[in-house]
Amino acid sequence: MPQTDPARLTADLIRCPSVTPEEGGALLLLEKLLSQAGFDCTRTDRGEVSNLFARWGAKGHVKTFGFNGHTDVVPLGDKAAWTMPPFGAEEKDGFMYGRGATDMKSGVAAFAAAAVDFVQNTPPDGAVILTITGDEEGDAVDGTTALLDYMEREGEQMSVCLVGEPTCPNEMGEMIKIGRRGSMTAWFTVTGVQGHSAYPHRANNPLNAMARLMDRLASHELDQGTEHFDASTLAVVTIDTGNTATNVIPAQSTSAVNIRFNDAHSGAGLTDWLQSEADKIASEFGVEIGMKVQISGESFITPPGPLSDLVSAAVEAETRRKPELSTTGGTSDARFVKNHCPVVEFGLVGKTMHQVDERVEVAQIHQLKAIYTRILQNYFATA
Amino acid sequence: MPQTDPARLTADLIRCPSVTPEEGGALLLLEKLLSQAGFDCTRTDRGEVSNLFARWGAKGHVKTFGFNGHTDVVPLGDKAAWTMPPFGAEEKDGFMYGRGATDMKSGVAAFAAAAVDFVQNTPPDGAVILTITGDEEGDAVDGTTALLDYMEREGEQMSVCLVGEPTCPNEMGEMIKIGRRGSMTAWFTVTGVQGHSAYPHRANNPLNAMARLMDRLASHELDQGTEHFDASTLAVVTIDTGNTATNVIPAQSTSAVNIRFNDAHSGAGLTDWLQSEADKIASEFGVEIGMKVQISGESFITPPGPLSDLVSAAVEAETRRKPELSTTGGTSDARFVKNHCPVVEFGLVGKTMHQVDERVEVAQIHQLKAIYTRILQNYFATA
Ligand SMILES: [Zn+2]
Ligand SMILES: [Zn+2]
Repeated sequence: MPQTDPARLTADLIRCPSVTPEEGGALLLLEKLLSQAGFDCTRTDRGEVSNLFARWGAKGHVKTFGFNGHTDVVPLGDKAAWTMPPFGAEEKDGFMYGRGATDMKSGVAAFAAAAVDFVQNTPPDGAVILTITGDEEGDAVDGTTALLDYMEREGEQMSVCLVGEPTCPNEMGEMIKIGRRGSMTAWFTVTGVQGHSAYPHRANNPLNAMARLMDRLASHELDQGTEHFDASTLAVVTIDTGNTATNVIPAQSTSAVNIRFNDAHSGAGLTDWLQSEADKIASEFGVEIGMKVQISGESFITPPGPLSDLVSAAVEAETRRKPELSTTGGTSDARFVKNHCPVVEFGLVGKTMHQVDERVEVAQIHQLKAIYTRILQNYFATA
Repeated sequence: MPQTDPARLTADLIRCPSVTPEEGGALLLLEKLLSQAGFDCTRTDRGEVSNLFARWGAKGHVKTFGFNGHTDVVPLGDKAAWTMPPFGAEEKDGFMYGRGATDMKSGVAAFAAAAVDFVQNTPPDGAVILTITGDEEGDAVDGTTALLDYMEREGEQMSVCLVGEPTCPNEMGEMIKIGRRGSMTAWFTVTGVQGHSAYPHRANNPLNAMARLMDRLASHELDQGTEHFDASTLAVVTIDTGNTATNVIPAQSTSAVNIRFNDAHSGAGLTDWLQSEADKIASEFGVEIGMKVQISGESFITPPGPLSDLVSAAVEAETRRKPELSTTGGTSDARFVKNHCPVVEFGLVGKTMHQVDERVEVAQIHQLKAIYTRILQNYFATA
């Protein structure tokens, strides 16, 4: 009866320097572990990105439990500010330090350890699939998307999927994510007519239009929230002109706004709204306003139901905490998985993710493996 | 009976490369010419700036006609775009080319030639003073100000002063300037609380306050003009943030506004107004707004009267055009002279000033000398 140590596996993964898009040895290590436990492993690399698909059990089984995670990590940031080696996985006062300690080598390790032990000790009537990408922190173009493309081509199907990103703001077990708001960015370029500050009537100052447009957008209420979502938000993230001559009215100014939107909106609908606001200001001020939009992800939700109940029950049993079903926070690869099957996200406390001295409480890694094990057991225990 | 050629003198001055603060030989050349004609010359250099004070006639005479001009020039700009040597003073199709051709070596040359011939041919009962600076295009801290400081120390006094800057927009003789609007710049720094675009409620976006403040200032009507002045204007000249991360709400943004104001306002009054608008927005949005103000010059006017009549009459006699008495345009050293004595500005067509291929119509230099001569004659002809 194998007992795979998830903390040791986390440490081994942290020691693989896998800053996006470097594989760093992390997927090789997982492939070896999973293969030895009877998983069929396929590398679905695309572009410069490495990805690993692993299935235990029969292809196409109606009861196929899926897991999605990533082994790539963000850069170190201020290297000199780290007090522990960022790829050292050293432990101090019950915490293991290193880039990816919480986001999310511990989550991958906890599920891999749980799955390996589970299929070997109590082989279920069904299948378990792991989709592990090396590009979640980067463009995410050749990562989970490539894995899902591969699965579609090969007729591989997950019945449900758990994403192992850190989901708990402060305490272990307090939050499951059942959806995410959508995210989009719009860049504006306002072009007027350059001129001398002393003769503004001969110029057409693009900054007047820019200030009005940004004020309009920032003070507009998109909605007041929906059943499962907080209110959508819009943030003006930058306005830039770069004019150092105070006697010159500039010809052009640029800005960017970022919108996080709930299921009351779509990227296309918001694009239309932004365009119409820009058009109104353009005609009001007689300027040209160019707009470029990038929709990083639409909002999505797996409404509370069997999958969230399954995860909730396991979390509550292990932590004695009833997790909140939340749709807050930034984006994750769940935005791709939701097109494939029902998906929820649960992982450990993410407080130090992306920071200097990123660290994970070692006891939480063990607790997370226990939760994931319970989820697998309960999933296959029911008809 | 000497006849000094003002076009030749303009050419000699253009050949002195006197980009601020370089003297370039221009003041030496004038000093030699004026000394030979009986002017007492004193160099009132200050800092790295060269200035020339020259007086013909008795110190402190109640009838002292003053002239103010500058020999420094702005940089060449796009050197490769010049089709004529910028310090060559070459002539083509009746135009003389070179940096300073209109702004304002021709004006200085025309007055110097007129004054030299006038005092030698028909010595008046009175005095003529020339104050020529090498720093009008730069900071103007050690230029005309240094000349006026010197005069105050030495008890030198001009009864009236003519500034020879180019004042005519298109046609020779169409405009005399009897005042100028004031000019000031205010820089704003709005500081909020940085955060993640996905959690705007945990941040306080300084750009919301910035957009509202700039919109408020830009859309405020300062006045509708006064008896001798156009309406005051405010131009937002830049807004900058420098945030390239679309998932980050920035901590800070900066901006600058430039105000050109008439005699309905003062720099201090406008500073108070800007501060109160900034304070309102700061408390409305809960941000900090820092403000730094630089008043480049207060507005001033020499109301229509004997001096403008004198200049008008001479212009009309020579050009058959009745000049408009205007207060439009950018700043000039008249803003310093107005504290010393009544001052008006008249010079030639300034269309190409500060541009590539700056040039002056050679006939206009001669015409300008004739106008200046007539002014001197008429000034001293009256009691
Ligand atoms: Zn992550
Ligand atoms: Zn000038």
